[in-house]
Amino acid sequence: MSLFERDQWISFGDCDPAGIVYYPNYFKWMDMTFHALMARHGGHAELCRSLGSRGIGLMEATLAFRSPGYEGQTIRYGIERIEWSGRAFDIHYRATEGARLVLEGRERRGVFVARDGRLAAGDVAPLRAALGQNDG
Amino acid sequence: MSLFERDQWISFGDCDPAGIVYYPNYFKWMDMTFHALMARHGGHAELCRSLGSRGIGLMEATLAFRSPGYEGQTIRYGIERIEWSGRAFDIHYRATEGARLVLEGRERRGVFVARDGRLAAGDVAPLRAALGQNDG
Amino acid sequence: MSLFERDQWISFGDCDPAGIVYYPNYFKWMDMTFHALMARHGGHAELCRSLGSRGIGLMEATLAFRSPGYEGQTIRYGIERIEWSGRAFDIHYRATEGARLVLEGRERRGVFVARDGRLAAGDVAPLRAALGQNDG
Amino acid sequence: MSLFERDQWISFGDCDPAGIVYYPNYFKWMDMTFHALMARHGGHAELCRSLGSRGIGLMEATLAFRSPGYEGQTIRYGIERIEWSGRAFDIHYRATEGARLVLEGRERRGVFVARDGRLAAGDVAPLRAALGQNDG
Repeated sequence: MSLFERDQWISFGDCDPAGIVYYPNYFKWMDMTFHALMARHGGHAELCRSLGSRGIGLMEATLAFRSPGYEGQTIRYGIERIEWSGRAFDIHYRATEGARLVLEGRERRGVFVARDGRLAAGDVAPLRAALGQNDG
Repeated sequence: MSLFERDQWISFGDCDPAGIVYYPNYFKWMDMTFHALMARHGGHAELCRSLGSRGIGLMEATLAFRSPGYEGQTIRYGIERIEWSGRAFDIHYRATEGARLVLEGRERRGVFVARDGRLAAGDVAPLRAALGQNDG
Repeated sequence: MSLFERDQWISFGDCDPAGIVYYPNYFKWMDMTFHALMARHGGHAELCRSLGSRGIGLMEATLAFRSPGYEGQTIRYGIERIEWSGRAFDIHYRATEGARLVLEGRERRGVFVARDGRLAAGDVAPLRAALGQNDG
Repeated sequence: MSLFERDQWISFGDCDPAGIVYYPNYFKWMDMTFHALMARHGGHAELCRSLGSRGIGLMEATLAFRSPGYEGQTIRYGIERIEWSGRAFDIHYRATEGARLVLEGRERRGVFVARDGRLAAGDVAPLRAALGQNDG
């Protein structure tokens, strides 16, 4: 069972001349899924304010495309689990169309703070608590 | 009352450094709204097949931005009316966030057919019938 | 002769299942053309700082699509003229592929300032001067 | 030294409310870089025709974000090397802004062919030859 799910309808303009989803859109929808999860807990802007962060941003992102998505289909993005370490956390995704696996993905994010005029990765524990994932 | 409505959640990545929706996204969502209407009647691909068309595409598109959209808001796109002429039709849109007007827009589309190796605008009456708009 | 020109290469992912440019991309490229003009005069962020503005943003945008753009083509966006009024200015665009007209467009923009907690359109004369358009 | 390089100017609309590039755009630019390489050898459509392929598409895509990209910067995408196996190939990318490393990435692509009504990965050797990479 997923921690969180979000449905995405595939429109004509999401697809390329091969008639399947243009792949950067899958990353946009993966990002939107994490932002939708944050929205349940105040949203990115409010979480940043309460955590003193400049952004809950990306260190890495990866997708494995298991089968194509076509115009008119609705795919379900699920967050399967989140792995928390000291200054980063990994969000694991799967997207399906009905029973069919469309993709598997992972985002590594940090809670970025300003330090000496640069962005640096801060402690992720307060975000973990804010998202209610302490026993996740 | 709108002919058709579709809700759009505004995510972080839809917004620009000024913190408001990056305007080409409003056009993408306007296009998606018309495709969502077509989806109720078989979808763009199926309509093109049944009408012998290469695409129900754009001649003009215009938006007037009445107030900004922000991250986390949900805006409702409504198709207010469609004006049909011989070889083109105008779709009139409004988008609102609650009672607040966000934008007003219009797309002029044609039913494009291949003619002498080029795309040309064909008769729109069969599409009007297919969308159930004969008394619209 | 254009006031300013910018070339845009059309990539695979800019095109839709009909094999032609997905139309919101034309708006993105129109916006990029104006930002490229501003970049010659310090860039949007620097111009906003010097003018005390929150953003040089959109009131309206419109495009007329005259002929399709295809993958692999390079189209040239030209700013044909800018019409300045008190609290808005209209930028007129044309895009061509060689001798062929692809589109004609217009953006109406304002110099937005914060006023009573809302964004309001300010005087555009200082921007006109900053862009060297006083005799334009 | 890179096999191939392509410069990308970062515009206002490529950036998010944190003022840095919205990350799916980095994937779009990575994809464009490979399409620009293919354009030197006839382009994706022509290569597909000559190879009997339905698309030279993605199996996996991954990016590690090493430092942020900001509005107005120009970043250089380089294809560092391509690793060819039987039915897939891995393209390794780096993007830099001047001497600064912005990202490292990899795309795994296949040469997809229609087989029993589905897309399947075909032999990549003919593409390798077409791109002049036999001694790569």
